[in-house]
Amino acid sequence: MKWKPSSDSHLTFHEQIVDWMKFRIESGDWAVGTKIPTQRQLAIQFNVNRSTVQLALDELKADGLLQSKLGSGVFVTNISWNVLLNKTQPNWKKHIDSSIHRANDHTIQLINEYEQYNHIIRLGTGELSPELLPTKQLEQSLKEITLDAKSIGYSSPKGNERLRRVLCDYLKRRGIQSEPENILIVSGALQALQLIAIGLLEEGSVIFHEEPSYLSSIHPFQSAGMRMHTVMRNHQKLAENLKVFKRKRQSIFYCVPTLNNPTGVNWLLEEKKNLYNICKELQIPIIEDDVYHELLFDHTLPTLKSLDKSGQVLYLGSVSKTLSPGLRIGWIVAPSPVVERLADIKMQTDYGSSALSQEIVAHWISTGLYENHLKNLREQLKNRAAFIENILENQFRKIATWNKSEGGFYIWLRFNKPIVNKALFLNLLNQNILINPGYIYHSGDSHHIRLSYAYASLAEIKEGLHALLLLCNHE
Amino acid sequence: MKWKPSSDSHLTFHEQIVDWMKFRIESGDWAVGTKIPTQRQLAIQFNVNRSTVQLALDELKADGLLQSKLGSGVFVTNISWNVLLNKTQPNWKKHIDSSIHRANDHTIQLINEYEQYNHIIRLGTGELSPELLPTKQLEQSLKEITLDAKSIGYSSPKGNERLRRVLCDYLKRRGIQSEPENILIVSGALQALQLIAIGLLEEGSVIFHEEPSYLSSIHPFQSAGMRMHTVMRNHQKLAENLKVFKRKRQSIFYCVPTLNNPTGVNWLLEEKKNLYNICKELQIPIIEDDVYHELLFDHTLPTLKSLDKSGQVLYLGSVSKTLSPGLRIGWIVAPSPVVERLADIKMQTDYGSSALSQEIVAHWISTGLYENHLKNLREQLKNRAAFIENILENQFRKIATWNKSEGGFYIWLRFNKPIVNKALFLNLLNQNILINPGYIYHSGDSHHIRLSYAYASLAEIKEGLHALLLLCNHE
Ligand SMILES: Cc1ncc(COP(=O)(O)O)c(C=O)c1O
Ligand SMILES: Cc1ncc(COP(=O)(O)O)c(C=O)c1O
Repeated sequence: MKWKPSSDSHLTFHEQIVDWMKFRIESGDWAVGTKIPTQRQLAIQFNVNRSTVQLALDELKADGLLQSKLGSGVFVTNISWNVLLNKTQPNWKKHIDSSIHRANDHTIQLINEYEQYNHIIRLGTGELSPELLPTKQLEQSLKEITLDAKSIGYSSPKGNERLRRVLCDYLKRRGIQSEPENILIVSGALQALQLIAIGLLEEGSVIFHEEPSYLSSIHPFQSAGMRMHTVMRNHQKLAENLKVFKRKRQSIFYCVPTLNNPTGVNWLLEEKKNLYNICKELQIPIIEDDVYHELLFDHTLPTLKSLDKSGQVLYLGSVSKTLSPGLRIGWIVAPSPVVERLADIKMQTDYGSSALSQEIVAHWISTGLYENHLKNLREQLKNRAAFIENILENQFRKIATWNKSEGGFYIWLRFNKPIVNKALFLNLLNQNILINPGYIYHSGDSHHIRLSYAYASLAEIKEGLHALLLLCNHE
Repeated sequence: MKWKPSSDSHLTFHEQIVDWMKFRIESGDWAVGTKIPTQRQLAIQFNVNRSTVQLALDELKADGLLQSKLGSGVFVTNISWNVLLNKTQPNWKKHIDSSIHRANDHTIQLINEYEQYNHIIRLGTGELSPELLPTKQLEQSLKEITLDAKSIGYSSPKGNERLRRVLCDYLKRRGIQSEPENILIVSGALQALQLIAIGLLEEGSVIFHEEPSYLSSIHPFQSAGMRMHTVMRNHQKLAENLKVFKRKRQSIFYCVPTLNNPTGVNWLLEEKKNLYNICKELQIPIIEDDVYHELLFDHTLPTLKSLDKSGQVLYLGSVSKTLSPGLRIGWIVAPSPVVERLADIKMQTDYGSSALSQEIVAHWISTGLYENHLKNLREQLKNRAAFIENILENQFRKIATWNKSEGGFYIWLRFNKPIVNKALFLNLLNQNILINPGYIYHSGDSHHIRLSYAYASLAEIKEGLHALLLLCNHE
């Protein structure tokens, strides 16, 4: 489907390529500063030899339209643009640089980019492997679903009513009492964080969290002008710490007390009670991000929300880690005024989540398909955890430590030496191995890698860990 | 599914209701300030007489837990909370009031709320009526779709590759040249505006638009701290006006040149060229919001984007107005650096749009189902437009003016007298008729109503317009 030079043309391949690229630059699709694809990628797209691509690029460089930067690729240049083409176009770079939302960290951008390619071994991906996703069952359930006009129209602000009722029932098993009016359907738990940031907090608010933290790898709060403040739940002076920073500002406490991302840790009941009581006294709302709960291997644990008798806890869930991240369905359980406020903002942001996805999730939970699938999924994840722990035990015991997994996706591997830096990340990427280094969850961390046994195949895990080991021994 | 008093209990119905409500208040689900449902609604929910509900409410009022406010309902009160229950909970109201995002205008909140109820006649709704939605065909296509693991996993930042390729082809017919890398899939055109606001503009940027404007009814830019500035495309001094305000700030020009919302107007080709040239010279990017294009009754029109040879125009489309708003699928066509930037932010906001919805849209467009459906849809909308115009001609000629519709959903009805105010809106709502008054699109407008022939049934339209006429003659 992509453009290719044609053998019917009266121009040579390399001339056609030059014209095509000029058109892309002139039209602004390749604006000044754009990094163009590599020679190899272009040769594949055009179905020509690399030498033909090289010829075309050389010509455009001679024209001053392209420029190589050593080691980082070929870029559309600045001068050429105005000089040669005598065109003006919006200065997009300036627009982007001065706009409100923070860019992703460069390591995370690379992760997002390379996760698209099939040849990459993904040792850290927080996502179910294709073989763990119930693809065929989902396809089957599409055949069973009946749609009415309501289910494909604009959604009501809080989301599909049936799904909200189904969720109330479902969450009861986890000790959470709610009514449909306390539930807001969102496009994944990440969107919930985004809505909370812009809908419940003023600029300059303080977000308390423990590091390492999933929140350090994304920026919904930071981009909304909030200040992150790291605390430790077991610190003797936790209450005092919270009090000092809270003083004149609004604040909220974010936590993942069950199967934490990235550490995999479960909080003790005592820790939950303690935090809840402190926050209640100080009137600091708590966000309990509980997207991994279903994946506890052996037994369920009480949620913070189940302790909550005062509407203190905003509880987040999602089917991304259990059923399909592509559905983009999550939920917030909260007091009605909060739900109403966030629903109002969601309507202003995207007019609700995919109605189709909501139908599917309601179908899966209400028919028990979901529960059955989870049983099987936990079994398989447990086997995968054992597999990776076995390799670690045999090969990494001398250089690293870790805890046995109690569920979810992750092992938080700690190297004795501080070897986990961007160089290691790039070095592995060069070997087509993608890791999630600890520093994206805790700036400055150079000891940890978040391993995931959820995504890669067992063979890939083995190969990837082997390459990692070689590199580590080499350091 | 909702809670009801049980006849198995040893408590009377009214005692059970009191307990249940106390629990909702104590647990914080009904926080201080919550307006509780009406007696009638509660009686229906509980399946009891209104007098039983009354008894329960009286008891809670006596306890100081509830309070009636004359004419506006029954609320959970302030004093009672701390005094009686001796509980603390976060001050959600304070949180909400000081947070970043603007609340919807009250009229719009009422519209969002009342659009959920089946008994309401919706004279202004910008949405296809249930009978115009291809519900059964969509259901059928669900049966035909095959899923692979990729299509239900996390999406790549720009969205489903196949859909992006299909869209490139599709948009060619509209004179738009693009490659998949120039397309970002979003959860509806509204989200596109949101992403542009936080991803391309700094706080204090100027958004130029013509009023009345869809943008005045939503607040993606206003909430991000931008300043709206109204200009008229045919003003002699357009260029000067743009220049003055642009001076020290970033700016962008927003427009709906085809089947404008709310006016239904199509720009002339000359107007498009003129605006494009001015903006190009001043380096002001243009957002061309083109979600109604497919609904031109008689012939297509050139888009601004098709004139764009310098990457000046960000082009927005969506299937919300044509196929199903519940799918939540739209797109942005833009230069690569812009697409990359917005894709990065989208990943931080919601990790991409529903994969299932994307599959369906790709299926509909690529198989021609979409094109066939559109042919039929245009025919039906045309008939509906004729129906409403006929009523207007017969009954409103003396008191109002309007233009014959050229497509889309709307007739921008102008009353000779300035009678369209909030009182009229509420008055009609009292009769279960919902209108979209002109003032939500242009603050201070008291002459217009946006009529839609897309949503209500013909019988409802007739009834609704009749009630409107009576009220108007009464003024
Ligand atoms: C702790 C945590 N919260 C939220 C999310 C986002 O999940 P969703 O796909 O539901 O937006 C993730 C996924 O990485 C996560 O690990
Ligand atoms: C002009 C215009 N743009 C954008 C939208 C939003 O459409 P979507 O449902 O694709 O977000 C609408 C819908 O009301 C509209 O009228």
